Amino acid sequence: MLCPEELLTGHYWALFDGHGGPAAAILAANTLHSCLRRQLEAVVEGLLTPQPPMHLSGRCVCPSDPQFVEEKGIRAEDLVIGALESAFQECDEVIGRELEVSGQVGGCTALVAVSLQGKLYVANAGDSRAILVRKDEVRPLSFEFTPETERQRIQQLALVYPELLAGEFTRLEFPRRLKGDDLGQKVLFRDHHMSGWSYKRVEKADLKYPLIHGQGRQARLLGTLAVSRGLGDHQLRVLDTNIQLKPFLLSIPQVTVLDMDQLALQEEDVVVMATDGLWDVLSNEQVARLVRSFLPGNREDPHRFSELAQKLILSTQGTDGSAPEEVSHDDISVFVIPLHSQSQGGRGP
Amino acid sequence: MLCPEELLTGHYWALFDGHGGPAAAILAANTLHSCLRRQLEAVVEGLLTPQPPMHLSGRCVCPSDPQFVEEKGIRAEDLVIGALESAFQECDEVIGRELEVSGQVGGCTALVAVSLQGKLYVANAGDSRAILVRKDEVRPLSFEFTPETERQRIQQLALVYPELLAGEFTRLEFPRRLKGDDLGQKVLFRDHHMSGWSYKRVEKADLKYPLIHGQGRQARLLGTLAVSRGLGDHQLRVLDTNIQLKPFLLSIPQVTVLDMDQLALQEEDVVVMATDGLWDVLSNEQVARLVRSFLPGNREDPHRFSELAQKLILSTQGTDGSAPEEVSHDDISVFVIPLHSQSQGGRGP
Repeated sequence: MLCPEELLTGHYWALFDGHGGPAAAILAANTLHSCLRRQLEAVVEGLLTPQPPMHLSGRCVCPSDPQFVEEKGIRAEDLVIGALESAFQECDEVIGRELEVSGQVGGCTALVAVSLQGKLYVANAGDSRAILVRKDEVRPLSFEFTPETERQRIQQLALVYPELLAGEFTRLEFPRRLKGDDLGQKVLFRDHHMSGWSYKRVEKADLKYPLIHGQGRQARLLGTLAVSRGLGDHQLRVLDTNIQLKPFLLSIPQVTVLDMDQLALQEEDVVVMATDGLWDVLSNEQVARLVRSFLPGNREDPHRFSELAQKLILSTQGTDGSAPEEVSHDDISVFVIPLHSQSQGGRGP
Repeated sequence: MLCPEELLTGHYWALFDGHGGPAAAILAANTLHSCLRRQLEAVVEGLLTPQPPMHLSGRCVCPSDPQFVEEKGIRAEDLVIGALESAFQECDEVIGRELEVSGQVGGCTALVAVSLQGKLYVANAGDSRAILVRKDEVRPLSFEFTPETERQRIQQLALVYPELLAGEFTRLEFPRRLKGDDLGQKVLFRDHHMSGWSYKRVEKADLKYPLIHGQGRQARLLGTLAVSRGLGDHQLRVLDTNIQLKPFLLSIPQVTVLDMDQLALQEEDVVVMATDGLWDVLSNEQVARLVRSFLPGNREDPHRFSELAQKLILSTQGTDGSAPEEVSHDDISVFVIPLHSQSQGGRGP
C-alpha cells in the first residue's frame, strides 16, 4: 500500500544487496518504502490526472486563461519516476545519518519494482537485475551500473575534481595495469570523452593505480567497490588511504516503465528480480527457460511462484541436477512476480 | 583516400551545417579529413590486425611472455572510433585558432561517414542525421545532439561550474518560463539528475531565464544555440552578455558502426545523410518511401543517386507535387550513398 487508500493503491517489491556489512541493506529495507510513500503523497493530486497540472494547487492555467503559455507535455508516470528518484536520494541521506549515529558502515545496491495505475516501474541503482519473461519474449527491465558501465561519468568526475584521486590514481584507462618497463612505450588508452581507443606514450603518472581496474565481475572502482550506484557507503574509503568513494557513487536509480495494460498479460507472465549472484551464473535466456519449463506444469500449486524462485537459486548451486557451467558463490535473492494479477488488481481500491 | 595507399583505402563523406556565418563550416570542410587522415595514420599498424596490440611498437606481449598480463579485448574498429573522436577535437582546435587569427566567428555541426575495411563508421556532433534504407529496413545511424537530448549533461555542468551562468540563468527546467505571479506556487521542475518530474515551490531565483528553453526545433541553449555539439563557436556569447557558450558544447562525436560485410547488401541499399532542414519536414519513413519509389525505376541512370538527393530536397519545398505537410525554410544538404559498391570496393588498394 503506497498511497492514501482512498486515492491510489499499489504494490512494492525491493531487493537490497549489502556490502561492507548488512547495516545499509537493513536500513534501506526498513526505510525506502516510507520515503517513496511520502514522495508519492506529495504528488498524488498530479497522479490522478493523465497530464499533471503545472501548478500542484492554486490558479488553473488553461487555454482560456489569458496568461496561458504553451507547456511541455508531462505525464502522470513522469511524477512516479520523479518520486522514485527522490525517494532513493532521501533514503540515502537517512542511511548516512543513521549509520553515522550508530557508528556502523556499509552500503547496498537497490532494485525496486512498483505497480501503480496499471504500470510497473522498475528503479535500479547497482548490479541487481529485473527481466520480464513471457511465452515468446524476454525483456530487460533494468540495466546494471558498475564501474565499467559508468566509466565515462566516473572519469569525467575525476577530471573535474582531480583532488578526489589524491594523486594516488590515474583516471586514464589502459588495457591492463601498466608496469615500470612500459615507460616510454606507445600503449592503448582511453580518457573520459572517448568510446574508442587511441595510443599514447606512457609517462610516469600513467603507472599509478587505475581509477577503474579489472573487467566484468572483477572490475573495481578505486580498487574497492564493484558497483557505481547504490545507497550508503558514506564512510567508505580506499584501504589505507583517506580517499572517499562516495563522491563517485550515485544514489539516483534509472527507472523503466512497463505499461501492463498494453501487454495482454497471460497467467504465466512474470518479472524475475534477482541480485548479481544469480545473473553471474545464469543468462536471461536460461532463467526464461527455467520459468517456462516450471510454471505450466504446476498450475494448481498456490505457491508455485515462490517455489520457482527457490528453484532458480538451487540451479545456481548445481544441486538440482541441471549442472550449471559455473556455481555461484555469492549470496542470492530472487523474486518471481506474477504480472497478471497486478494489471487486474492494480487500479483503485 | 584516407590512409597511405599501400595500407588502407577508404571513403569519406562529410556534412557541415554552419551557424553564425559560414566560416566554421568552410574550415571544417577543408580541415577535418586531414585531421582524420593524420589520426588514422598514427594507428594504421594497429588497424591491420583484428586485435590491435597493446604496444603500438616495441616488445611483443603474448601468452608465452612471462610478463603476460590479461588484457582487455580491443578491436581494430575501436581504433577507428578513437581516431574519429580525436579528429573532431583536433579540427575544433584548428577552427578556434584560425577564426581567432582571421577575426571571424561561427560554428557548425558535423556528420561524417567513413567506409574502411568493410565497415561504415558514422560520426555525429550536432543535429544532422544519417539513416540506412534497405528494402525491408530503416535504421538510424546517428542520434541528434540538441539542448534537449543533452539536458542532463548541460545541467550538471552548470551545477559544477555555476559561474558559467553568471547569475543570469537558472539550471532548473520548468514546463514553461515562469512569471512573477508564479512566485510561491508549487510547480513542476526537473534538475540535472532527474528523468522524472517533481514539484517545488517557486523562489525568486527560479524566475531567471532557463539554461535550456523551448521544445523541439525551438529549444535553445542559453537562449542562443539550437545544438549542443559541434565545431567552432569559440567566441560565441549570449547576446548582450559576457556568458560563453563554448564550455557547454562538445566537439566529440558519437560514432556508430555498420558492418557492411554482415549485411548481404543489395544494389539499392543506401545511406541517406542530411542536415536538419530535411528531417524537420520528412520522417525517416517518408525518406525511405521516396528512396524505394525512386531507385528501382531508374536502374539504368548512372546519376540516379544524386538525382535522388535532389528529389529529396525538392520534396521539402512542395515543388515536386508531393505536397508535404510542412515546407522547410532551412538550407538543406543531402548525400545518398550506395552501400553495395562500398562493401565490394572498400577493402585494400
